[in-house]
Amino acid sequence: MKHIHPLKALLIGYLGYIGLGWILLCLPWSQGSGQVGPLDHLFTATSAVSTTGLATVGTSNSYSFFGQIVILALIQMGGIGYMTLGSFILLARNRELPAARKNVARWAFVLPEGFNVVHFVRNVVLFTFAIEFLGALGLFFAFRSAGVENAIWQAIFHSVSAFCTAGFSLFPDSLEQFSTNFWVLSIVAMLSVSGATGFLVMSDLFGSLSGKRDRVTLTTRIILHATGWMIVVGWIGLFLLEPSYRNLSNEDRVLASGFQAMSALTTVGFNSTSIPTFAHAPVFLLLLMMILGASPSGTGGGLKSTSVSAALATVWSTLKGRSNVTFWGCEVPAHRLTMAFSSVVFYVIIFFAGGLVLLCLQPEPMADVLFEAASALGTVGLSRGITGDLTPLSKFVVIALMFIGRIGPITFGLALFSGESKPLEMEDLAV
Amino acid sequence: MKHIHPLKALLIGYLGYIGLGWILLCLPWSQGSGQVGPLDHLFTATSAVSTTGLATVGTSNSYSFFGQIVILALIQMGGIGYMTLGSFILLARNRELPAARKNVARWAFVLPEGFNVVHFVRNVVLFTFAIEFLGALGLFFAFRSAGVENAIWQAIFHSVSAFCTAGFSLFPDSLEQFSTNFWVLSIVAMLSVSGATGFLVMSDLFGSLSGKRDRVTLTTRIILHATGWMIVVGWIGLFLLEPSYRNLSNEDRVLASGFQAMSALTTVGFNSTSIPTFAHAPVFLLLLMMILGASPSGTGGGLKSTSVSAALATVWSTLKGRSNVTFWGCEVPAHRLTMAFSSVVFYVIIFFAGGLVLLCLQPEPMADVLFEAASALGTVGLSRGITGDLTPLSKFVVIALMFIGRIGPITFGLALFSGESKPLEMEDLAV
Ligand SMILES: [K+]
Ligand SMILES: [K+]
Repeated sequence: MKHIHPLKALLIGYLGYIGLGWILLCLPWSQGSGQVGPLDHLFTATSAVSTTGLATVGTSNSYSFFGQIVILALIQMGGIGYMTLGSFILLARNRELPAARKNVARWAFVLPEGFNVVHFVRNVVLFTFAIEFLGALGLFFAFRSAGVENAIWQAIFHSVSAFCTAGFSLFPDSLEQFSTNFWVLSIVAMLSVSGATGFLVMSDLFGSLSGKRDRVTLTTRIILHATGWMIVVGWIGLFLLEPSYRNLSNEDRVLASGFQAMSALTTVGFNSTSIPTFAHAPVFLLLLMMILGASPSGTGGGLKSTSVSAALATVWSTLKGRSNVTFWGCEVPAHRLTMAFSSVVFYVIIFFAGGLVLLCLQPEPMADVLFEAASALGTVGLSRGITGDLTPLSKFVVIALMFIGRIGPITFGLALFSGESKPLEMEDLAV
Repeated sequence: MKHIHPLKALLIGYLGYIGLGWILLCLPWSQGSGQVGPLDHLFTATSAVSTTGLATVGTSNSYSFFGQIVILALIQMGGIGYMTLGSFILLARNRELPAARKNVARWAFVLPEGFNVVHFVRNVVLFTFAIEFLGALGLFFAFRSAGVENAIWQAIFHSVSAFCTAGFSLFPDSLEQFSTNFWVLSIVAMLSVSGATGFLVMSDLFGSLSGKRDRVTLTTRIILHATGWMIVVGWIGLFLLEPSYRNLSNEDRVLASGFQAMSALTTVGFNSTSIPTFAHAPVFLLLLMMILGASPSGTGGGLKSTSVSAALATVWSTLKGRSNVTFWGCEVPAHRLTMAFSSVVFYVIIFFAGGLVLLCLQPEPMADVLFEAASALGTVGLSRGITGDLTPLSKFVVIALMFIGRIGPITFGLALFSGESKPLEMEDLAV
């Protein structure tokens, strides 16, 4: 493995995990009541490892309890992998490495000196399990009082699925039966936001709030501001634009629109109201939110809040006639803007390419097909209801989009194109 | 006028032209057989000055001969304005200005020293009329042999409309009756490509071909390569993807797909086949082509081939692990990449905002509404057939998109946000 580029090794590693999950899901013990073909098992395995949550078959009836445990394990692994890798990248960015060091920068080495990887991973795992335990506890009581059967397993499954922003659900209609259940939706939202924000930002924030540190790092600040603003704008947008929400009481309307905006932006992908019956404008808004996505240090997908912030800051600088791009007075280095530019453009290229191929294969309206492509690439898992009707070829395309979305399009591209002789500056990948 | 920012003056100037055109089109002498309201006259005037070609009413039956002359004059003025301004920008870019000069750079001054503006504008006007005359001559013979009535006026109107990439037509179904007429479509295509490429690039190319100069400038080379490749890719894409083209003979299929790709990319917006009956995948491809658009020195709209090239080159550099972005070995300065980044992002923001508002106002499928928005912002004029069904508010939105698309979104933004105290570096606007 020594001569394989670290990014290629990463790709191969994920392919291995998906392959392992596929084999396990194909086992007789994993099967539920329905007949599920091998392509659908591959789809489920990829959707779980990529924490997307798109499903061609119903998770609760197509898989046995053992099968569901396999899916949850794949989700958990995908989620922790996401967060540790993302955090490493952010840690590396918060620190200027000496030039000599940069030149030999490699995946595992671009970390602050004296940084204890084992220690860090242990903290991430502890953080994950602690939050998931609390979430499961809360969901257990909420589910039980809502009369849900098998509340313990349901609580564990949905807590992990929410924190890892996977959005897999054992209920046949995601969380639609809880559309007015404040506690279920709030707990799921808190889990999703924690997971999508990630350990590093959370610990930075808590360190600052508890007075351990003077203030949060610039990256944390950007992530928190961008995530907050995007959720608020999406929330208000969905509140105003979705006609079916007008039949709800004011409280339920606030809850429904807030949950759905949170769901698209954290890329968790649960739905508390029916997405296929949404009107055009809110569907388009959801589509945009799915493309924008979550934060680089967390479990979510999409373009990432840091890239989006860099893009907006660049536009703002240009409009104000400034020659440099700044956040709160801190100038963003040119090479990082270039990387943000590349990430955004490459993401859009992959989205357009995947969308175009799907449009050739699927008969559904363009909006629904592009929604599916954006959902897969952003590892969101919301759907206009066409996932079950995908042709075999389309399933392969969606599988590829989920996989690329999981790795991150620009990282995927770098893994394909980078020669061994040109080590990457990993610090830039998170932009 | 001395204290108004040049870009604001530009905005006001175009608004004035549109207002003048509006008044002229409202006059009794301009009316044709139908009843046209003042909002539709404003729509026509904006569509003509912005050389878009979207029409809420039929040009040939709603306007008298005098009205058609007014429309043609607005198109001609919009087209020449486009090309002269675009050329000034490109001229300025091909030359590094001294730093002190840069700081006082203003619209009219960012030109090579000793540059004769009057001489240049005269050349552009001569070039325009010469090509339009030749085009009209060719179209006259082509129309006459096709049995078109009033062939002289039709030839003049369509020649000017093609060269200015306006796409206005006096035929009720654009050029659909000529879908297999090689000469009509070829002449229109040559006119559109000449106009969209622009005087500066054409003269640079001819200067090089005739041996007057060693080689074309870097900008010309980028524009020619980008335009060529985009048309070829679009051509092949439409050839393969549009199902209705499969009923055509091979020659006609090549002609139809080539013409439609050219039409979207030069943003002329004529159609020789019916766009509303296109399948999903080719519609999406057309949508993308309309967003990409033409060249900064010509009469077309869209994101411009230079911005698109900069974006692709940046991605390529990142994927290859290079720290700088180059074209044929020439490094692109960082501030120009930043400007390209801003242009692309701001264009997409305006497109999304306009699309979202239109989706709130229009009941048609999302694809058709977004197609209309992209067509308006790119000043293309292709439509899925919803232009006539736009609500009054939607018409205002489309008018705004055409106007912004005409000025160029980033230029529009600069005009709004730039204070007088911060002069712009006009050289960058063309990226
Ligand atoms: K998800
Ligand atoms: K046009």
